[in-house]
Amino acid sequence: MIRTRTVNDAHRLRTAQLDMPPRLLLGPGPSNAHPRVLQAMSMPQVGHLDPRFIELMNELQEMLRYAWQTDNALTVPVSGTGSAGMEAALANLIEPGDVVLVGVMGYFGQRMVDMAGRYGAEVRQLTKTWGEAFTLDELRAGLEKYRPDVLALVHAETSTGARQPLEGVGELCRAYDCLLLLDTVTSLGGLPLFLDDWGVDVAYSGSQKCLSCPPGLAPLTLGPRAIDRLHRRETQVANWYLDMSLVSRYWGPERTYHHTAPIAMNYGLREALRLLVEEGLEARWARHQANAELLWDGLADMGLQCHVSPEIRLPSLTTVRIPRGVDGKAAARQLLEEYNIEIAGGLGELAGKVWRIGLMGFNSRAENVTLLLGALAQVLGR
Amino acid sequence: MIRTRTVNDAHRLRTAQLDMPPRLLLGPGPSNAHPRVLQAMSMPQVGHLDPRFIELMNELQEMLRYAWQTDNALTVPVSGTGSAGMEAALANLIEPGDVVLVGVMGYFGQRMVDMAGRYGAEVRQLTKTWGEAFTLDELRAGLEKYRPDVLALVHAETSTGARQPLEGVGELCRAYDCLLLLDTVTSLGGLPLFLDDWGVDVAYSGSQKCLSCPPGLAPLTLGPRAIDRLHRRETQVANWYLDMSLVSRYWGPERTYHHTAPIAMNYGLREALRLLVEEGLEARWARHQANAELLWDGLADMGLQCHVSPEIRLPSLTTVRIPRGVDGKAAARQLLEEYNIEIAGGLGELAGKVWRIGLMGFNSRAENVTLLLGALAQVLGR
Repeated sequence: MIRTRTVNDAHRLRTAQLDMPPRLLLGPGPSNAHPRVLQAMSMPQVGHLDPRFIELMNELQEMLRYAWQTDNALTVPVSGTGSAGMEAALANLIEPGDVVLVGVMGYFGQRMVDMAGRYGAEVRQLTKTWGEAFTLDELRAGLEKYRPDVLALVHAETSTGARQPLEGVGELCRAYDCLLLLDTVTSLGGLPLFLDDWGVDVAYSGSQKCLSCPPGLAPLTLGPRAIDRLHRRETQVANWYLDMSLVSRYWGPERTYHHTAPIAMNYGLREALRLLVEEGLEARWARHQANAELLWDGLADMGLQCHVSPEIRLPSLTTVRIPRGVDGKAAARQLLEEYNIEIAGGLGELAGKVWRIGLMGFNSRAENVTLLLGALAQVLGR
Repeated sequence: MIRTRTVNDAHRLRTAQLDMPPRLLLGPGPSNAHPRVLQAMSMPQVGHLDPRFIELMNELQEMLRYAWQTDNALTVPVSGTGSAGMEAALANLIEPGDVVLVGVMGYFGQRMVDMAGRYGAEVRQLTKTWGEAFTLDELRAGLEKYRPDVLALVHAETSTGARQPLEGVGELCRAYDCLLLLDTVTSLGGLPLFLDDWGVDVAYSGSQKCLSCPPGLAPLTLGPRAIDRLHRRETQVANWYLDMSLVSRYWGPERTYHHTAPIAMNYGLREALRLLVEEGLEARWARHQANAELLWDGLADMGLQCHVSPEIRLPSLTTVRIPRGVDGKAAARQLLEEYNIEIAGGLGELAGKVWRIGLMGFNSRAENVTLLLGALAQVLGR
């Protein structure tokens, strides 16, 4: 062993065994992982080219197709968190000079604007007051005006709690020869999603919301029109780690090594998707809707107002207006410190104006609604 | 609930409970996670802005500094696997037109060439036969000839098993006003590393090798000269997810939300680093060296030859020449199927010529060496 230097112990921090408080995560995500998911993650590690891991990869892909209601062959978990999924979707579609039209109705639309610009897109924006969604006519007018190569929308805006209706949008994009890219981070596994029926070309999500898995994986799916665009690229994807022309060779029949997949996270996602398959999408969606309605009724009984109108209100994430005279941050802190409940404040335009309450996946349960309403009533003195 | 479509059950795959074989991972990584690491990963999830998680972030940073022997403030785990660490290092340093000189002595040097090109660098290469390393004179000649902005080297080439000596390289880079970037994926926690003493400006690693954590995090550290370069950039980092000017605000005192950190993976890395702190770097390095020597002696007794000369042979990864007449792939498959032991074949120039045997972190134990040598002797009939 070659060692001519002396080890410095200045940063040799000695810490106690990990001990985390039993938080109930009712914010915008992560939500609590299902206990079976955590159990699966502690299974013995295998290699990322092990025949058994390759079987698991196929299972994951198939269950993700069910979750999204798509036949897309290229449906994989990206080895990063939800934002890596967003970046993968944009990086693979965009070539410098492409026109990308982003529907901005909250923080995550803004993030797409930022990312798309980094990949050399000519970014155009449609904007909407935070908490609202675009009508089909507004989208048509945008396509007519900007003639984009890609229309990027957020299905479930985690910053506002609004749902973007998708019926008819896919047809519109085909009429204008434009790809449809959809953020489903806060909708996958929580509310109706029919990717193929809706004509969505690219979608991504995160493992840590309605799928009840810890953060660390970003499901991504590319349909035939997107794959075709990828094959016709004149420039390399300007991001090696997220280059789907490389990643897809690992997830495809070739199994060519690209990067080491996060083994334990993929174990967890498999179990999360098994839970979804067991419950069934219809039952899962109905559960999220029913518990959200329980929450909305309880909030109304307390005299609190939801920020988003009922017809486009997300069941997975509710924005509640902070009543005049209440310190929103202090209330959230009190919920965390005294009740171990996490909720979040607003972002951007809604900072200081709303709380964000998530009921996602495993956490969408009646007892959680009852507990939160009780704790909130005590904190607000209502 | 808005739902006008019918759910299609075509992809509703029903699978059995996850059941993975008890593999002993003696390939180039991932290696087996330490049981305490897997246990830590199953602790209850908290939010990525929870005060308790922020404490954990500080602990992680400090223990990573110890592991790397650096005082660098910006020392964080990137939310992706090792290759994301490589890409983060390059993306943040490179502006279009910068000259990047890569020392290519194996597959991972080639990967840096590919990545650096995507970020618009003028890439120059020094090349070396796979299994060898560069001398100080060769590096000096390269710096003199190409006058690069960045010199990128691989400390432990996972594809060849060779170690790049670093003494004197940092001084050289300073003399040529060039940043020194170092891949430490297969060295961090396994062999002597003195980042600050060596004058390394940027380094990255992976969680799944000598740290005994599952894959999914990529430790990254930037020293003062690299930070200065980052601040003086004229263009945005062409990668949003890995943009350290944004990521560092989440890991710094501002705690500004960037992306949702992979909570469970960070629990695991904390425990992995605790194990390192408990053992101490000197003991850790000596253990890796001693078990590697046991392996080398055993291989020699069987008449097998190591590919790399002893003075630059990695203790964490050994390349063994496949004897004439032996089907290397078949032997590896037999080890996996009959003994549950994973070793790997060669990559690139060494494909078909060597096996790669890893003794990393938790797996660097005498009993594993004994088992592997015994199994290999049976498979090879020696």
